[in-house]
Amino acid sequence: MAEMRRRGLLIILSSPSGAGKSTLAKRLMAWDGSMSFSVSATTRAPRPGEVDGRDYFFKTRPEFEAMVAAGEMLEHAEVFGNLYGTPRGPVEARLAEGRDVILDIDWQGGQQVRRSVLAQDVVSVFILPPSIADLESRLRGRAQDSDEVIAGRMAKSRDEISHWGEYDYVVINRDVDVAEEEITTILRAERARAVRQPGLTDFVRGLNGEFEAR
Amino acid sequence: MAEMRRRGLLIILSSPSGAGKSTLAKRLMAWDGSMSFSVSATTRAPRPGEVDGRDYFFKTRPEFEAMVAAGEMLEHAEVFGNLYGTPRGPVEARLAEGRDVILDIDWQGGQQVRRSVLAQDVVSVFILPPSIADLESRLRGRAQDSDEVIAGRMAKSRDEISHWGEYDYVVINRDVDVAEEEITTILRAERARAVRQPGLTDFVRGLNGEFEAR
Repeated sequence: MAEMRRRGLLIILSSPSGAGKSTLAKRLMAWDGSMSFSVSATTRAPRPGEVDGRDYFFKTRPEFEAMVAAGEMLEHAEVFGNLYGTPRGPVEARLAEGRDVILDIDWQGGQQVRRSVLAQDVVSVFILPPSIADLESRLRGRAQDSDEVIAGRMAKSRDEISHWGEYDYVVINRDVDVAEEEITTILRAERARAVRQPGLTDFVRGLNGEFEAR
Repeated sequence: MAEMRRRGLLIILSSPSGAGKSTLAKRLMAWDGSMSFSVSATTRAPRPGEVDGRDYFFKTRPEFEAMVAAGEMLEHAEVFGNLYGTPRGPVEARLAEGRDVILDIDWQGGQQVRRSVLAQDVVSVFILPPSIADLESRLRGRAQDSDEVIAGRMAKSRDEISHWGEYDYVVINRDVDVAEEEITTILRAERARAVRQPGLTDFVRGLNGEFEAR
């Protein structure tokens, strides 16, 4: 597309667990090495080997709550007594550099980000499995979880899927190569949007200068 | 993209005269044979060889005005005493069949269509020339027009260019192959939008049926 300074895209990727989202996100980052995941903030304790700023930004609850109050979290939620969220600062810095940022969040996070100050940068993609049988086999293949745990994940998947209509784009992951190609096509088009290319203003100013000089 | 029943796109193509829009429109129709231009309605008299319904829908002024009053024109304008417009019916029929329709209209027509009942189907693309020198040489190369006529076209081009920011996408036509590829990428992505794929509702209903049957 037009080689011109652009803002990065804030890519919301959501899907039920087991639809292949992680694989697709890794492929996107291989496709364009300037893309990266957002690092989440959390109040939960670091696990062995986890590095602050790489795996998570580890925060105390008061620190986290102060960030929320200051509008520094694009989205946040409490899960099993711990807060998780997406800090705005690092995301904004990368977007300003023209680098795309991937947010791996669920529909509730997606709703918050779409209403955030970065709404204009958002491109949201929902990944659907070709079938529930496929989803379940991927969930079962992944680990030796009990039927009860699987049933819980499936219920959450159903809830997640019910929100597909809130997303800009929906990709059915029947074949991972095709799905990747669909998503890169979407991203290439979104990068060509007039609103993403502040450089166009200068380009048109140049055209007007040519008109003046005639 | 997902092979699924979809609505057609209502593609607004605008550009200053001489930026290569006609060539690009022809290439798009070669790329996807189901795409077509909208046939305009006009109150001007047919010229020799022009066929009603193919070149234009020829209307009397009262007929045309009745269509406008009935909301049957997506956009219309008066040019040198004749009315020109885009009838809604044929466009809507094609969109419902999943066929894209190209509207070759200027920024004023574009504004009307974007505010029409078909706003949701619109994808608007503005084509810019790489330079004004390039634009002028194409205008001069096209016909033996007087300097005065060329100057008039250039003034109109400048006015047209000033509206680039109202369009979803902007493509700079430096190289016609690259520009074509940019536009087809845009159209493929737009076809993948959730809102364009009514078939997704049935697909997700199928997934829910699978959940029920577990």
